[in-house]
Amino acid sequence: MINKIASKLGAKTLSSDVKNVTVTGGAGQIAYSLLLRIASGAFLGPDQRIRLQILDLPFMQDNLKGVQMELHDCGFPTLDEVVVTDDYSTAFKDTDYCFLVGSKPRGPGMERGDLLKDNGKIFIGVGQAMNDNASRDCKTIVVGNPANTNALICSHYAKDINKKNFSAMTRLDHNRALGQLALKAKCNVSEITNVAIWGNHSPTMFPDITNTTIQGHIARDIVDNEWETNHFIPTVQKRGAAIIEARKLSSAASAGSAALDHMKDWVDGSNQWVSMAVNSDGNTYGVPEGLMFSFPCTTKDGEWTIVEGLDISSEFSQKKIKTTTDELLSERQFVEDLLK
Amino acid sequence: MINKIASKLGAKTLSSDVKNVTVTGGAGQIAYSLLLRIASGAFLGPDQRIRLQILDLPFMQDNLKGVQMELHDCGFPTLDEVVVTDDYSTAFKDTDYCFLVGSKPRGPGMERGDLLKDNGKIFIGVGQAMNDNASRDCKTIVVGNPANTNALICSHYAKDINKKNFSAMTRLDHNRALGQLALKAKCNVSEITNVAIWGNHSPTMFPDITNTTIQGHIARDIVDNEWETNHFIPTVQKRGAAIIEARKLSSAASAGSAALDHMKDWVDGSNQWVSMAVNSDGNTYGVPEGLMFSFPCTTKDGEWTIVEGLDISSEFSQKKIKTTTDELLSERQFVEDLLK
Repeated sequence: MINKIASKLGAKTLSSDVKNVTVTGGAGQIAYSLLLRIASGAFLGPDQRIRLQILDLPFMQDNLKGVQMELHDCGFPTLDEVVVTDDYSTAFKDTDYCFLVGSKPRGPGMERGDLLKDNGKIFIGVGQAMNDNASRDCKTIVVGNPANTNALICSHYAKDINKKNFSAMTRLDHNRALGQLALKAKCNVSEITNVAIWGNHSPTMFPDITNTTIQGHIARDIVDNEWETNHFIPTVQKRGAAIIEARKLSSAASAGSAALDHMKDWVDGSNQWVSMAVNSDGNTYGVPEGLMFSFPCTTKDGEWTIVEGLDISSEFSQKKIKTTTDELLSERQFVEDLLK
Repeated sequence: MINKIASKLGAKTLSSDVKNVTVTGGAGQIAYSLLLRIASGAFLGPDQRIRLQILDLPFMQDNLKGVQMELHDCGFPTLDEVVVTDDYSTAFKDTDYCFLVGSKPRGPGMERGDLLKDNGKIFIGVGQAMNDNASRDCKTIVVGNPANTNALICSHYAKDINKKNFSAMTRLDHNRALGQLALKAKCNVSEITNVAIWGNHSPTMFPDITNTTIQGHIARDIVDNEWETNHFIPTVQKRGAAIIEARKLSSAASAGSAALDHMKDWVDGSNQWVSMAVNSDGNTYGVPEGLMFSFPCTTKDGEWTIVEGLDISSEFSQKKIKTTTDELLSERQFVEDLLK
């Protein structure tokens, strides 16, 4: 019916199928920016009808209603329906794409182990709900921190869904690295290739420009070692704190934008390297099996592939990769009783 | 240089020219959502390079720096440069498109006349700066309230720029009307045509469905008079307050989205009716000359045209249009000493 009328009006022809997109932490600031762009067609294109299934905690339902009202007020032809709920089964029902944004933030005086365990419990619930309700082909990005270990727990409990369908976000770090290089070299980000983020989405991550080119030249011929070590790497690693310092608010819009980039490139394919934290099979770059670890990837036909054969043998690279690997191993140890 | 390298990399080919886009109130919540979408290419398309020129008050410069950092962190190929400033000449230098979002909000106990005059002074400064610095073809939308009268003052002081290049936003109200009709008729917004918002962007506005069709049928055959009068019109008129009630925050994302729709349709053209507050020539629908008044318009080749020949002779329409016209006349009277 919609297609028939829309084409009669000369309006665009919308898809006959509807894709279900779940966003958790829906009343928060990252989701506020992200939801609008998903609804506008920036994720699945201007013709794909979508149903948004937005989850948040019971006490956030009024705010979530406000978000739903604003989505209705945008008049997006691509937006078929907006479901807001505090019920996991409703949020994950037949879902095709999950943006897991919601997590428990670290409060004052909170120990790292408690943060990992409290979030672990949230992602047990999410994983089980996905296992019971989501499409078997559902693609998932975890944005809520500690993102890598949350994704690990989630995928463990969604046991009937292929682990390759789970990921955690390091695209924000990847985009931040591109931004810093473009500012330094005074060029456009599209002129920079082969940036990689290795490891954890945390200050231990390794932003790696070993293979990077800028305007067709080797990056390390353009930027010097001092800048790379003392400016570039720490700036990317600690960018979140710097944004909070300036804005007095955390980096919501750029995080939402990176989540969109991550999922869009996963669905549409990308010849350019993208950084994604994905399940390690234990045979790639010596990363222990089962960790959710950020690698440089390319994407095609809805699948990611880790870029293989890169030389990471330098002492510098080895040390950086070991630090972030050790952190992820220690995070896993903190939650090992949740993974049985 | 950019084009040569980008095409060598297989990346998209960007335009050789750069369009300058000015956004005021850049550290606020509407701009936070809007800036990201402009930067991503959602306004001028995925190939058009843009320079953002973002203005806010001196004490907001730290927050604005944070916004600049996040825009750098998004890795948008379309975004050539981000200028943040508290200097009017810098913000409006050679600008092609202005989103005038910043205004002084109404504080507790503030009289309407004071609100109009305080904002009037802001828009005198903006108008003069545009006159001295902006492209002569610059297109402007005023989002900051009281938007219609702010736009009137701004265009008065930008005396060397054609008044047809100034407008105020009623597209949010227009989109809200579409959203309410789509929910009521359980259809897609693209199946609804010929909605109009008349008058002021304030609770006196007249959301008019006299000529509206829904799925090819006359809207008033589908929705009854009681719903139109007692639900539809007041819901659209008071939607802003209802969002604040639910979200505890004002409707920032949907306002930014409507501003983008308004400007995009103005630039790209639209066969569908869009509502825009524009300069009245005194010869159309009896609206007094010089008011910035919302009419149903179509757009083509970068020009808006008021939809003429509509029947607004019913007692109902006449009364509604008179109320909002009288309000705009009274607003103009409050600021008449600023318009000499």
